[in-house]
Amino acid sequence: MGTFNRDAKGVYLITVTPFKDNGDLDLVSTDRMVDFLLERGVTGLTVLGIMGEAPKLTAEESRTFVRQVLRRTQGRVPVVVGASSVGFAPMKELSRSVMDLGADGVMIAPPSTVRTDDQIVAYFDMVNETLGPDIPWCLQDHPVATGVQMSAGVIQRILKSSPQCVMLKHEDCPGLAKLGHLTAAMKKGELQRVSVLCGNGGGLFLPEELSRGADGAMTGFAYPEMMVDVVKAHANGEVERAHDLFDAYLPLARYEQQSGVGLAVRKHLFWERGVIASAAVRKPGPKLSAADLADIERLVRRQTQRLADLG
Amino acid sequence: MGTFNRDAKGVYLITVTPFKDNGDLDLVSTDRMVDFLLERGVTGLTVLGIMGEAPKLTAEESRTFVRQVLRRTQGRVPVVVGASSVGFAPMKELSRSVMDLGADGVMIAPPSTVRTDDQIVAYFDMVNETLGPDIPWCLQDHPVATGVQMSAGVIQRILKSSPQCVMLKHEDCPGLAKLGHLTAAMKKGELQRVSVLCGNGGGLFLPEELSRGADGAMTGFAYPEMMVDVVKAHANGEVERAHDLFDAYLPLARYEQQSGVGLAVRKHLFWERGVIASAAVRKPGPKLSAADLADIERLVRRQTQRLADLG
Amino acid sequence: MGTFNRDAKGVYLITVTPFKDNGDLDLVSTDRMVDFLLERGVTGLTVLGIMGEAPKLTAEESRTFVRQVLRRTQGRVPVVVGASSVGFAPMKELSRSVMDLGADGVMIAPPSTVRTDDQIVAYFDMVNETLGPDIPWCLQDHPVATGVQMSAGVIQRILKSSPQCVMLKHEDCPGLAKLGHLTAAMKKGELQRVSVLCGNGGGLFLPEELSRGADGAMTGFAYPEMMVDVVKAHANGEVERAHDLFDAYLPLARYEQQSGVGLAVRKHLFWERGVIASAAVRKPGPKLSAADLADIERLVRRQTQRLADLG
Amino acid sequence: MGTFNRDAKGVYLITVTPFKDNGDLDLVSTDRMVDFLLERGVTGLTVLGIMGEAPKLTAEESRTFVRQVLRRTQGRVPVVVGASSVGFAPMKELSRSVMDLGADGVMIAPPSTVRTDDQIVAYFDMVNETLGPDIPWCLQDHPVATGVQMSAGVIQRILKSSPQCVMLKHEDCPGLAKLGHLTAAMKKGELQRVSVLCGNGGGLFLPEELSRGADGAMTGFAYPEMMVDVVKAHANGEVERAHDLFDAYLPLARYEQQSGVGLAVRKHLFWERGVIASAAVRKPGPKLSAADLADIERLVRRQTQRLADLG
Repeated sequence: MGTFNRDAKGVYLITVTPFKDNGDLDLVSTDRMVDFLLERGVTGLTVLGIMGEAPKLTAEESRTFVRQVLRRTQGRVPVVVGASSVGFAPMKELSRSVMDLGADGVMIAPPSTVRTDDQIVAYFDMVNETLGPDIPWCLQDHPVATGVQMSAGVIQRILKSSPQCVMLKHEDCPGLAKLGHLTAAMKKGELQRVSVLCGNGGGLFLPEELSRGADGAMTGFAYPEMMVDVVKAHANGEVERAHDLFDAYLPLARYEQQSGVGLAVRKHLFWERGVIASAAVRKPGPKLSAADLADIERLVRRQTQRLADLG
Repeated sequence: MGTFNRDAKGVYLITVTPFKDNGDLDLVSTDRMVDFLLERGVTGLTVLGIMGEAPKLTAEESRTFVRQVLRRTQGRVPVVVGASSVGFAPMKELSRSVMDLGADGVMIAPPSTVRTDDQIVAYFDMVNETLGPDIPWCLQDHPVATGVQMSAGVIQRILKSSPQCVMLKHEDCPGLAKLGHLTAAMKKGELQRVSVLCGNGGGLFLPEELSRGADGAMTGFAYPEMMVDVVKAHANGEVERAHDLFDAYLPLARYEQQSGVGLAVRKHLFWERGVIASAAVRKPGPKLSAADLADIERLVRRQTQRLADLG
Repeated sequence: MGTFNRDAKGVYLITVTPFKDNGDLDLVSTDRMVDFLLERGVTGLTVLGIMGEAPKLTAEESRTFVRQVLRRTQGRVPVVVGASSVGFAPMKELSRSVMDLGADGVMIAPPSTVRTDDQIVAYFDMVNETLGPDIPWCLQDHPVATGVQMSAGVIQRILKSSPQCVMLKHEDCPGLAKLGHLTAAMKKGELQRVSVLCGNGGGLFLPEELSRGADGAMTGFAYPEMMVDVVKAHANGEVERAHDLFDAYLPLARYEQQSGVGLAVRKHLFWERGVIASAAVRKPGPKLSAADLADIERLVRRQTQRLADLG
Repeated sequence: MGTFNRDAKGVYLITVTPFKDNGDLDLVSTDRMVDFLLERGVTGLTVLGIMGEAPKLTAEESRTFVRQVLRRTQGRVPVVVGASSVGFAPMKELSRSVMDLGADGVMIAPPSTVRTDDQIVAYFDMVNETLGPDIPWCLQDHPVATGVQMSAGVIQRILKSSPQCVMLKHEDCPGLAKLGHLTAAMKKGELQRVSVLCGNGGGLFLPEELSRGADGAMTGFAYPEMMVDVVKAHANGEVERAHDLFDAYLPLARYEQQSGVGLAVRKHLFWERGVIASAAVRKPGPKLSAADLADIERLVRRQTQRLADLG
């Protein structure tokens, strides 16, 4: 469970990037966030994703943040760094530099410019050439963000020609059928196993994804214990318990996954939980209104009650 | 509550279009569906929407279906017909013909070709010219489907220049802030009131939308009693009760709202509930797998239990 | 040359749909347009395309227009009718009804909802099922309008499984490489020959397309004699002459192919040439300004001079 | 003519970024390119645009290239640097660093995430805040690349609230009407004058844009003398001569502006003209086939002849 490899299971949490109220990187909060997440039981960390506001960081800030996360994590769980880029020179530079800092691997999504099956496969051939034989990587399938539709067949082609690709982050929607095809192909031995972590809708289909053979989740949520506990219960065969837990968190998770405003909700909740010192989101970014805060207050209160009822 | 006008409240249900197993229109199931929905307490019906497979019907089939719905409804609730079209001649023809059949109004979304504020406003000026002074209509704001982003300001401009526009179907996401602006403007008298019915994410934000001043819901779900009961509870000031009901249905509602496969789930559930004789979806359309059916079976069972627990 | 089949060559002109100043269909101008185009030497007509304002016509108007074109053409050249539709019932109805009126075939582009190679191929399997064994059809590859990228490989798969598909309308951009692959595959016998007519950028790459093995053009331009003469010269081995002619028309062709305003330019030119009685474009549509008209006047004058110089 | 300010006229050439065959930056060719362009009469240089393969450079490479261009230019013409970015921290860092190196200003296009009029205007308010009072900038209006439609009204709002915005790069299509509105507003004094340089379709509408009041061109083409001579002739009132020159280059310009493959054509031509030592385009990028090269050879030969005929 402790290595970024084809057998990885559990929850790789997509972290936020903590800022101070003035917008500067907050490295103290970064440390606290790492501790908080590890205490909640996550089995890996994924940094510099879209929800990590990666495009809003300078190259130097990106390195500083990754370095801090790695220092604090101290190898307790693997750290994967988002390194998608239209160009291969920046991808190579960022990947090498974070691997030198001690990262365990990188995550790559295709750019919106590739469309046909052959274009997608050719793009990942170039990714393999760029990353070389020493950098393990995770294939991110996230059409809502990228606009790129990868069929199950295309993903199989990529995996077969990518010896260093050890993980699939599945977040296509509707994706349950595709997920089922891929895990079945692995079970039958038609496809070498990779770890399959899911994040469709921000984890909003987690129980169903686990039933289709997913190894866990890779997504963000201010209550990572939800994913950790659901995955554990499911792994223990307690499927109804997994659904009970999931359902208890679903109303808030749904609210936090609203496109656009969701990141502000997540940071607010992390702030409220004492994890980060400021809920600041860098511009351009959403702000919460009084009505949003009232919604959140109610949803948290109801969630607490429901978890207490569950025991 | 019984008229399609600026004071409309409650739930306008987006109906499916029932087919036989061979793909033909099923008018017997259409009658049963109308009865079922009215018995569940919906206050209006909206037909020939995207989830009504409107683009898969011939012009003659569209008229036949609308005629059947109107005959069965017999004026007990208003019937609104989707009439969006890139061209105004087809919009006029369809609108006039369904009004002649007895429909109460039409619903219009902008085509994906309009983009700037002025283009959007100009388009709806042409809609007003096309529909004339006698056809009440509902403005559909659904950027996920249309690609058209209408700001609160643009919607106000459209409403101010559209005397026959009596309803807004709000399904922008994230849309709570926009919804709040519009309902506040109406309350302050800056904007003449229209009925505001919501469908963001297929009703997945209904309690929060009601808190922002929405008059109800316009969306589809195989358990329309969810929306009816949530809206009623909210109107009675029982906000926690509204959330309790909503939460009980949320796991299945979320599953039914998956883009792509959702319509097949909905028709399957309507079929299971004895409403329609066949769950057939016309091509091109999704099909459910055994794993999907197992998911649905579990979610329905859990929903039934939870509703029983709620009392 | 006279049949809509795999051996078709020459120029299939995408016609406009003539309206009166009040927006009604103008059937007298329709007759005159047919005569004009046949006199200019086109080898086929394609009606109800995007530039034929098809989405702005009612179903009845579409039939009326097609009937008039067929009556006037009287079989002198084949007539192909645009029948793309998201749904198969409307596609079937329109296709059958125009074939009954005497059309020679239909043209189908994929809807924007299909994305992966397999989805595209599956869609055209359903098209074949819909059209049946008796309706010859043309595959339209027009990613700028549809958003669907079909690789050379996908087009080969479609052609192989579509015995009734006799023509490819190629208008991908950049498309010369794809075009070259397909014509080479046909030459080598890897792929059964279909007629390949081009329209990339509205014919703005015609000489280069002919050099890659295209059989001619299918596009619109108010000077169809350009395409007719360029194709003829090229077929006669007079490649430089083909370029000379093309270059003489290119400044105006480029101006007429501006997206958005181009149709108004084309109808203005047809009106100026005495072909149609009114340059009216149905709403929503562009209008020409005084500056646009001055541009056109200059470009026509320069084109006339240059053609005279060429002899 | 020599300053990047509201009065700028002439041709700001979008440069390519020269690479060696092995893909490394080629600084010797960079020097030769700067000399070549200045000898051809361009009045400004724009670097790190899309056609400069900016997204394929590392941050360090970007700085190295800009530094080299500035050293070689030595203030003979202004140098503007593309600095568009989704995030403001990277925009600020790049802008400050190139201004420190001696650049004259930056160019900013909106990100694809802004859609409504108000969102666009708000975005540029943040741009102004980011760049501060000391960095002059050029507003790039390029909807084909960005997906953002800015109406004439929105551009006026941005210009009015942006004291440091001194130039508009207009490349909307169809854009002649919008261009005419903006230049008319400046003439009437409703809007403070900025320099308006055009690049619609890569300069394919240059004569018409000059007639609508544009101050010149900002685009790329391997024959920058075309734009320089057309702008000069037009400024001298020799409008027919401007068209003659333009028409002579149009067949090749059209070929070089093919989306996708165009950059490879441009670099090939620069290589053929002895400007750059290698035509290498970084991956992912297009390659030219033998048929492409034959097309280019023919088009260059014909262009040379036609220019000779013109005198």
